[in-house]
Amino acid sequence: MLASDLLIFLSRMEAEARIETTLERAVATATVNTCPARLAEAVRYAVFPGGGRIRPGLCLAVADACGAPGSRLAEAAAAAVELLHCASLIQDDLPCFDDASLRRGRPALHQRFSQEIAILVGDVLIVSAFDLVAAEVADLPIPAANILRALARGAGAPVGLAAGQAWESEPAIDVAAYHRAKTAALFEAAAVAGAEAAEVNPEAWRKVGGLLGEAYQLADDLADALGESAQLGKPIEQDRHNQRPNMVTRLGAGEASQRLDDLLARAKQYLPACSQRRKIEEFLDRAAGRLRPSGWRAKVENLARVAGVL
Amino acid sequence: MLASDLLIFLSRMEAEARIETTLERAVATATVNTCPARLAEAVRYAVFPGGGRIRPGLCLAVADACGAPGSRLAEAAAAAVELLHCASLIQDDLPCFDDASLRRGRPALHQRFSQEIAILVGDVLIVSAFDLVAAEVADLPIPAANILRALARGAGAPVGLAAGQAWESEPAIDVAAYHRAKTAALFEAAAVAGAEAAEVNPEAWRKVGGLLGEAYQLADDLADALGESAQLGKPIEQDRHNQRPNMVTRLGAGEASQRLDDLLARAKQYLPACSQRRKIEEFLDRAAGRLRPSGWRAKVENLARVAGVL
Repeated sequence: MLASDLLIFLSRMEAEARIETTLERAVATATVNTCPARLAEAVRYAVFPGGGRIRPGLCLAVADACGAPGSRLAEAAAAAVELLHCASLIQDDLPCFDDASLRRGRPALHQRFSQEIAILVGDVLIVSAFDLVAAEVADLPIPAANILRALARGAGAPVGLAAGQAWESEPAIDVAAYHRAKTAALFEAAAVAGAEAAEVNPEAWRKVGGLLGEAYQLADDLADALGESAQLGKPIEQDRHNQRPNMVTRLGAGEASQRLDDLLARAKQYLPACSQRRKIEEFLDRAAGRLRPSGWRAKVENLARVAGVL
Repeated sequence: MLASDLLIFLSRMEAEARIETTLERAVATATVNTCPARLAEAVRYAVFPGGGRIRPGLCLAVADACGAPGSRLAEAAAAAVELLHCASLIQDDLPCFDDASLRRGRPALHQRFSQEIAILVGDVLIVSAFDLVAAEVADLPIPAANILRALARGAGAPVGLAAGQAWESEPAIDVAAYHRAKTAALFEAAAVAGAEAAEVNPEAWRKVGGLLGEAYQLADDLADALGESAQLGKPIEQDRHNQRPNMVTRLGAGEASQRLDDLLARAKQYLPACSQRRKIEEFLDRAAGRLRPSGWRAKVENLARVAGVL
């Protein structure tokens, strides 16, 4: 291993540890001993052990790249984004949404606890997300306020996560708006928050976050269609089962895969000037590697051949 | 009508208008034309027309009493508290909670729309609540941050609204903690937010808010037991139906009614020194009048006589 690779490896390990530590702090704050015991257990179950933590990783990588490597505000924002994401997963799995029994390789939260507890954990996570960042307002008022508003934009309506899920209830679905709101909006918030924590203009970073988010949604659609249940940690072919728009169904596997490559390439092209560019490039490369696992290409080609579109 | 009564009447009308205007602004922000149409319609349905707006009224009355009569931060906080309250009502009515079909004299939101939309509207209202106050951080960073944290405490866990609802899922229920969290916590947040907006120490106001909140919960229990469906705008005897702890069942109607009087009296006794004390006294008197409507006393006595406890 080269010395530079070792440094990057150590930097990544450090970022992962900062995310987990901050999430632990948020969970501990919400579940101290006056908290009803089942709620406390369920809040912890919702957050640990985590999935890829890609959204908080993006937030910290952007803050690092912009020259704010130890920012406590970035840590709070990163954990907040992850809490909002965890809340959305719980809801997605509820019987009235996707009715999924498996999440991250374990029983979905409402299966392990109850629907009531699942809904309440969602509330607690959303509230805790804003509380985490509000606690940093005294140190950096304007960046913290901008991050709070970015989180609200990414999580709520008209263009955030909740709006994205609500598109599923519309008689006619705007697929681009649906995917942008359901997935890209929170990636945008993560990237914007990292830039705000470093006190740099967030607009170019919003674009980078949005492109990575679109890529992530496309990779999720591909994994769902290709039957990568182990990779997903949740049941496959859920989109077909739930009659959700899936880009693979719409475009075919070959074109969807090509578009995934394009989105990942564009995310790198749009990177603005920053003092530690290598940090964010490394993050994007690693994300790309995870979104296109080995063996994937052959499966895509096979699926496309079967469908007769290659 | 005396001139002083007229001034108080006009001041109350003004407060009510400020609350509705700020709620309208929040709803408009969340439902602009890119928002999925059904979600937008449901968000508006959740907020308008309102109930008593007692929590935002308390917030503004405290800010007024503390000498910040036109505070935009207090308006944002007041509307935020009401949005959090509206979110909790929607959840309370869901099939997995109280399974109630009627709210504020109309179909409950999940009946009028769907469970998915009801859950998403809850998310949107919580997010919008924090967004409203975050928008005021630039003007008054520390008070706004304190209000954000007070809202989080009142709405989340371990001692807020979500924790209160979660007590219903525990095998053994701590009734005092349950009522404190489910009802009093958001009243406390409302009073604290009003004080913070006026930049005065909020601790005495927290106590006043908590006492009014306890009184409100007790009055709700009494209305439920006395069968005041029209007053409630929702089905009666829901506590018995859902096997919820009800203070009337526990104490008898006579003692519960006496305790309600005591709580309202103590809320006034705990009022701290403030420049416009008459504003908050008038608010508390009016709240007391609404919590003990005419004809109520006779019904309480009758119920207590039937139960043999008077």
